[in-house]
Amino acid sequence: MWGGRFAAEPDRVMQRINASIGFDRRFATEDIAGSRAHAAMLAAQGILTAADAAEIDRGLVAIEAEIEAGSFAFSEALEDIHMNIEARLAELIGPVAGRLHTARSRNDQVATDFRLWVRGWIDATDAGLAALQRALLAQAEAGAAFVMPGFTHLQVAQPVTWGHHMLAYVEMIGRDRGRLADARMRLNECPLGAAALAGTGFPIDREMTALALGFGAPMANSLDAVSDRDFVLETLSAATICATHLSRMAEEIVIWSTAQFGFVKLSDKYTTGSSIMPQKRNPDAAELVRAKIGRIIGAQVALTTVMKGLPLAYSKDMQEDKEPFFDAADALALAIAAMEGMVRDMAPVPERLRAAAASGYSTATDLADWLVREAGLPFREAHHVTGRAVAAAEAAGVDLPALPLETLREIDGRITEGVYEVLSVEASVASRRSYGGTAPEQVRAQIARWKELLQ
Amino acid sequence: MWGGRFAAEPDRVMQRINASIGFDRRFATEDIAGSRAHAAMLAAQGILTAADAAEIDRGLVAIEAEIEAGSFAFSEALEDIHMNIEARLAELIGPVAGRLHTARSRNDQVATDFRLWVRGWIDATDAGLAALQRALLAQAEAGAAFVMPGFTHLQVAQPVTWGHHMLAYVEMIGRDRGRLADARMRLNECPLGAAALAGTGFPIDREMTALALGFGAPMANSLDAVSDRDFVLETLSAATICATHLSRMAEEIVIWSTAQFGFVKLSDKYTTGSSIMPQKRNPDAAELVRAKIGRIIGAQVALTTVMKGLPLAYSKDMQEDKEPFFDAADALALAIAAMEGMVRDMAPVPERLRAAAASGYSTATDLADWLVREAGLPFREAHHVTGRAVAAAEAAGVDLPALPLETLREIDGRITEGVYEVLSVEASVASRRSYGGTAPEQVRAQIARWKELLQ
Amino acid sequence: MWGGRFAAEPDRVMQRINASIGFDRRFATEDIAGSRAHAAMLAAQGILTAADAAEIDRGLVAIEAEIEAGSFAFSEALEDIHMNIEARLAELIGPVAGRLHTARSRNDQVATDFRLWVRGWIDATDAGLAALQRALLAQAEAGAAFVMPGFTHLQVAQPVTWGHHMLAYVEMIGRDRGRLADARMRLNECPLGAAALAGTGFPIDREMTALALGFGAPMANSLDAVSDRDFVLETLSAATICATHLSRMAEEIVIWSTAQFGFVKLSDKYTTGSSIMPQKRNPDAAELVRAKIGRIIGAQVALTTVMKGLPLAYSKDMQEDKEPFFDAADALALAIAAMEGMVRDMAPVPERLRAAAASGYSTATDLADWLVREAGLPFREAHHVTGRAVAAAEAAGVDLPALPLETLREIDGRITEGVYEVLSVEASVASRRSYGGTAPEQVRAQIARWKELLQ
Amino acid sequence: MWGGRFAAEPDRVMQRINASIGFDRRFATEDIAGSRAHAAMLAAQGILTAADAAEIDRGLVAIEAEIEAGSFAFSEALEDIHMNIEARLAELIGPVAGRLHTARSRNDQVATDFRLWVRGWIDATDAGLAALQRALLAQAEAGAAFVMPGFTHLQVAQPVTWGHHMLAYVEMIGRDRGRLADARMRLNECPLGAAALAGTGFPIDREMTALALGFGAPMANSLDAVSDRDFVLETLSAATICATHLSRMAEEIVIWSTAQFGFVKLSDKYTTGSSIMPQKRNPDAAELVRAKIGRIIGAQVALTTVMKGLPLAYSKDMQEDKEPFFDAADALALAIAAMEGMVRDMAPVPERLRAAAASGYSTATDLADWLVREAGLPFREAHHVTGRAVAAAEAAGVDLPALPLETLREIDGRITEGVYEVLSVEASVASRRSYGGTAPEQVRAQIARWKELLQ
Repeated sequence: MWGGRFAAEPDRVMQRINASIGFDRRFATEDIAGSRAHAAMLAAQGILTAADAAEIDRGLVAIEAEIEAGSFAFSEALEDIHMNIEARLAELIGPVAGRLHTARSRNDQVATDFRLWVRGWIDATDAGLAALQRALLAQAEAGAAFVMPGFTHLQVAQPVTWGHHMLAYVEMIGRDRGRLADARMRLNECPLGAAALAGTGFPIDREMTALALGFGAPMANSLDAVSDRDFVLETLSAATICATHLSRMAEEIVIWSTAQFGFVKLSDKYTTGSSIMPQKRNPDAAELVRAKIGRIIGAQVALTTVMKGLPLAYSKDMQEDKEPFFDAADALALAIAAMEGMVRDMAPVPERLRAAAASGYSTATDLADWLVREAGLPFREAHHVTGRAVAAAEAAGVDLPALPLETLREIDGRITEGVYEVLSVEASVASRRSYGGTAPEQVRAQIARWKELLQ
Repeated sequence: MWGGRFAAEPDRVMQRINASIGFDRRFATEDIAGSRAHAAMLAAQGILTAADAAEIDRGLVAIEAEIEAGSFAFSEALEDIHMNIEARLAELIGPVAGRLHTARSRNDQVATDFRLWVRGWIDATDAGLAALQRALLAQAEAGAAFVMPGFTHLQVAQPVTWGHHMLAYVEMIGRDRGRLADARMRLNECPLGAAALAGTGFPIDREMTALALGFGAPMANSLDAVSDRDFVLETLSAATICATHLSRMAEEIVIWSTAQFGFVKLSDKYTTGSSIMPQKRNPDAAELVRAKIGRIIGAQVALTTVMKGLPLAYSKDMQEDKEPFFDAADALALAIAAMEGMVRDMAPVPERLRAAAASGYSTATDLADWLVREAGLPFREAHHVTGRAVAAAEAAGVDLPALPLETLREIDGRITEGVYEVLSVEASVASRRSYGGTAPEQVRAQIARWKELLQ
Repeated sequence: MWGGRFAAEPDRVMQRINASIGFDRRFATEDIAGSRAHAAMLAAQGILTAADAAEIDRGLVAIEAEIEAGSFAFSEALEDIHMNIEARLAELIGPVAGRLHTARSRNDQVATDFRLWVRGWIDATDAGLAALQRALLAQAEAGAAFVMPGFTHLQVAQPVTWGHHMLAYVEMIGRDRGRLADARMRLNECPLGAAALAGTGFPIDREMTALALGFGAPMANSLDAVSDRDFVLETLSAATICATHLSRMAEEIVIWSTAQFGFVKLSDKYTTGSSIMPQKRNPDAAELVRAKIGRIIGAQVALTTVMKGLPLAYSKDMQEDKEPFFDAADALALAIAAMEGMVRDMAPVPERLRAAAASGYSTATDLADWLVREAGLPFREAHHVTGRAVAAAEAAGVDLPALPLETLREIDGRITEGVYEVLSVEASVASRRSYGGTAPEQVRAQIARWKELLQ
Repeated sequence: MWGGRFAAEPDRVMQRINASIGFDRRFATEDIAGSRAHAAMLAAQGILTAADAAEIDRGLVAIEAEIEAGSFAFSEALEDIHMNIEARLAELIGPVAGRLHTARSRNDQVATDFRLWVRGWIDATDAGLAALQRALLAQAEAGAAFVMPGFTHLQVAQPVTWGHHMLAYVEMIGRDRGRLADARMRLNECPLGAAALAGTGFPIDREMTALALGFGAPMANSLDAVSDRDFVLETLSAATICATHLSRMAEEIVIWSTAQFGFVKLSDKYTTGSSIMPQKRNPDAAELVRAKIGRIIGAQVALTTVMKGLPLAYSKDMQEDKEPFFDAADALALAIAAMEGMVRDMAPVPERLRAAAASGYSTATDLADWLVREAGLPFREAHHVTGRAVAAAEAAGVDLPALPLETLREIDGRITEGVYEVLSVEASVASRRSYGGTAPEQVRAQIARWKELLQ
């Protein structure tokens, strides 16, 4: 493969560490698309004859069909996907195949393939995330007014609505999609024509190949084109952040589906049993989604570590970019699909949600706010008065709405009958009508906004 | 601070683990800006009287002056920057200070402060990166036509130009700036008004505070507003990728300034000596820049790990978001400044660069390309012929341009005198005129493009 | 500092990136100990006169006193702790101070200081972990027979005992201590005398300095001695694993102290309130302990990234080893202390624990085991029969012990009255007497074993 | 599989995310060994009849033969290796197969399998590391006295010997082996008999199974036994540290084999050519070894992230422990084998090494030491005198040994003819006879010590 200057064969361990065909075969489609675009351009520029280009194109189309049919024989000895396809092309169409490699190199070829693959993955992932948003919106709509506890520190803080909670995740996923879209925009430049690292003396037309492959433009520096792996790192970063969101949602599902919380029932489709404890219904899918973040941040660390301190331009270290990325990409895609299914099938239990919200003095802040609004206390003073009211309720073994007026008035004489209008959880959530607040009317407005965006 | 319901004081170790004033004092300016905007809005909405609002504003202005003057007494017992400022406000203006906390909470306050701080850091970092690009462009312009080796695998591959190599980093830094700009756009939404987590029943105007603080809009979900730390993670991701670029540049500087390479001379301003070896001039700044990536990816891993699996909305875990971010933010800012200085002062050694480029058969590809172009060989065949020519040159102990024509013609009879026109390193780089290629004319065109962009 | 060969002063940014005195001042004690041992050895070997050595020692003792008294003036211009102390020594005792640096270098000096510091930290941390084990043992002893749910997937699986659960953490912490002890053993070799990197021509006695500083032996290769940072990485690894244990314990405390679980009550000393929700008692200490793992794994990633690909021997990159380590070391020490306090003060609520254990058909496995043992069914068949019994109980709205015998016999005729002896949670835990099992007698045996180990 | 209580089939995406048979089939041998030991123990304790146990053993042996022969049909529907083997056992021997699962669970089963697998990997890796040490020792012995530059900051510092440099890596690898040995010792306790999490009521003998499987003891707490993954994390930590060493060695090989350094020649067996640049001989194996650290630290981060905050005992998240570990384990094994081959076949170029050592005033420290030793200057003063001598040499365009005596005496009159005895690189290395120093006699002593250790 490298001319006749090597006296000894590579060692067996060298072959194993060096070969990439085991994983870069996933680039087959992209590699052929790149080669077809390159050959067409070479012909248009008069570097290849039309006849040679047609022959090459015919061969590449045949190879693509073989790969799709599963009849293509990948060879480890040919090291990578590029050489596998090139060698097969030579078998199919003879020495003219050798003209395809004019004015390019494996360095720009693999960079092009990888960008195309990542771009395709981003598109598929964006669709998956949109589906997840729709599942969350459906939950939000069905339970826009279900009252549940809003937690801080996993302690009941204030009542919120189920719809509001679902919408929080819709927002997060929305940002995830934004990050992927930005990464896609930035990666969508074409390395083809950078050749080994310095560009080429052949009169190629880089705009033409870029356009043919759907790229916005050719990359502006050939050294950068073959040595850049930012696009993988940026996509992994977006994936990692998305995975934090999924892990948080998954953690909530695990906690919510405990016997102690009982906030949701998961469908049989996303739970499993136990080999020894027949009564178990385990939220396995949620746990696995929660865990996937490990491999995704792991892949990001892996590739960052690989790229650290690499001199320009191409170093073989960069071959270690693909397996971690594929692993992370597959993990996130699977996690999104599993989460979408779980959310779709998950049944909230409104009575458990409300009961939990109505305990723990969750409307204490409403009392404090009432004191500010109706009795004119500074907030800090209102806060202290409320603390005493909660202590009284705790001593009496009741929640705030059940505390007699006289008890409240003993604590602060400015309290009147009207206070009871704000102490129920329904009144509490209904009152939080500030923009983005938990009131059902706000929730419905946000649902409407998102439905339009997701059309 | 928390009303009268706590019987025991916090343990000393609890105070130490809980207090954040040691680091969140860096939010002082942002916290005061947020409070002033909040108070003005409360007044505009009739929630505060104009007089109270004016009093509060006066107090906040006074506190800002104290902090700037260094006379503000930060107290560990008051735990965080918010309580420190609030307590001082109460000292300065009395109980009316307590009205400032109406319709907000520390949860939305800290989220707002942090976003403002990160936004400011992004702006400063962007300016630093632009300065670095200018330093690189100056190098590129001065040495647009200096010939140097283009490396792959740190082996001489093909001749390139110094200007071309500098521009590769200009491109990378350009993408870094793009990522920071995207992160800035996405984080520029205002959490203020989310209150503890559910929004508020007070008739606040979130658009007004958002506008006053330079945000594009209020955040659309109050739970999300207080529980989101995406903006930190995304900024750290962009910082990490930027740090990979700096580490690569730094590695090159370390290698280039060895006695063996001798490609560049560093200025005294960015090198150090040794306490025991008097002759040493060590590229310490480059090494430290190379190493900074550790802390930056470390911070990203740290915060990702913290956020993994946190239920909504606020958990105290999230207090661990600031120190790693500050550490990474400071490290990157310092690394950029050091790199800019090094690049500005660095002197390439053209004769060493050229000599290195002219050894190692670096124009072998040019010979192969000539065979394709002039003699019509398929590239793969041309590649084999070239391999034999290199072997002959190696045997003769000369480089390619010094190989006699008869030797070349023995290898392949189609080779003619004209081949010598492509075998010099100057001819090689001049020929690579494809878009983004290494030819001085291409380099100058890219310099011109960037100069315009950087105005 | 570096002789007279530098024409220009270091740039201001260079000074900032280069100086380490801001953090390596923590090595003051170790640095002085190392210098004193070195000077004594030089004198014993006749390299220094006894008078000079005495003078140097006197000076070093004086400096140590100044540092302890807080009167030592650290100077940024002197860059690091070594130069700060050396310069002060020259002030105190004149030019003879210059003789101290004979046969050593900052490279072996800093390596020695750092090893001594890490060794001291390990000893302190081991004591902290032992205290945590004692606190867990006290909990285990007090609640050796409290029945609580054993969870898998956070679903009730089988009843276990509180003591058993506490002991699981005692085991984990025991392994953590083992890892730290191994790291200590491995790091306890002395770099002093490696000089810059090659050893020295002075007739030094490395055994003597090693012994004086409590090391087991001098390091056997001087290049390795100055370039090794394994000991930091290994200690960080042990710290990271320990932090996973603390994070798990902390997560359980957070969940257990929710209103929904109500398994434990935390003391006021380790909880906080809320600025807006007066009723809250937040498990802040547990959340912060849970989060500390972020910074610890972050430090490990940071230093691993720094060390990746560094050629021998010393590179300035290695200066980035200290701050992440100090940060992680402080974080873990604080987390252990906070956890110890929390565990000590935490009050389990036996009736809530038992009630949770007795729901959810947690003795289903006991029924299956009874069928195997008493009725001779293969386990897999017993498992199916049990599944039907659980379904019947669920349909009847009762737990297993309340299911009538006729119902059970309809499911499988081989079931007899005796089965009720195994269906209570107390019977269940009492039966699991296999070594390491949850039966109170097993728990008490393990407590006894550990008490002896911890004496 | 989970009895009859599930109305719906698992979703397709659930099957994909849940199944582990794709990777845990690597536990086949360990799973069968564990089952055989368990069955033998059940029989010995009278829990199984001897006939049943014999039947089960016969079946398990048959399955092992099928797996070795490649004829075993793994089924995705059966989810994992345990159920695959159990189902096949039932096919082969009928319902008696169901008795094997008495007194155990998949939780203790998988923990046992995994420990056995890691133990086997450690043993194989230790052998690989010993082979690498032997290859390094052979290099050290052949070149014990080759003089080469000792670098700090990649600048020539002092002359060292090739043997000394090789031995530095022998030391590092020695510590790696120590860490693996410690991890092995700590993991070598048997989880079997912990059952699901609480132990069992069957009268099992855990000592017997532990012994049969080569474990030192049964684990002492059943909750810990099924929830612990320390052993994976600790092994990954040791692997990561080992990978830092390999990455440093690999970086040196990459730099040493550049045209500019020319310190070593790599064998064809571990280098590759280029598809476009026929003259290239690329150190691919070294680059790939350098990069492998990415995946290894990535795996450690992945699993640490997974384990963070998991409540006891088993959670499905823990299924994500295997793939990252296998990936890292394979990567390290391959990297060690490749490094061993490279080191074995690598040819140092003594004349290039010496020439590099003899430039750059590398014996400046020897001059300074001479001034201390022979002329009685304090080191700091000697250091300044040496700085002036280096400046004079630089001005004269010569290295130190070529500086005339009068020039030296102008700088300091105390310098005499004798100084030239220490200014050659050979004299320099020969003089550094301190323990662990670079003198050939010290190097040979260390080689002798290691040869004995490695017998």
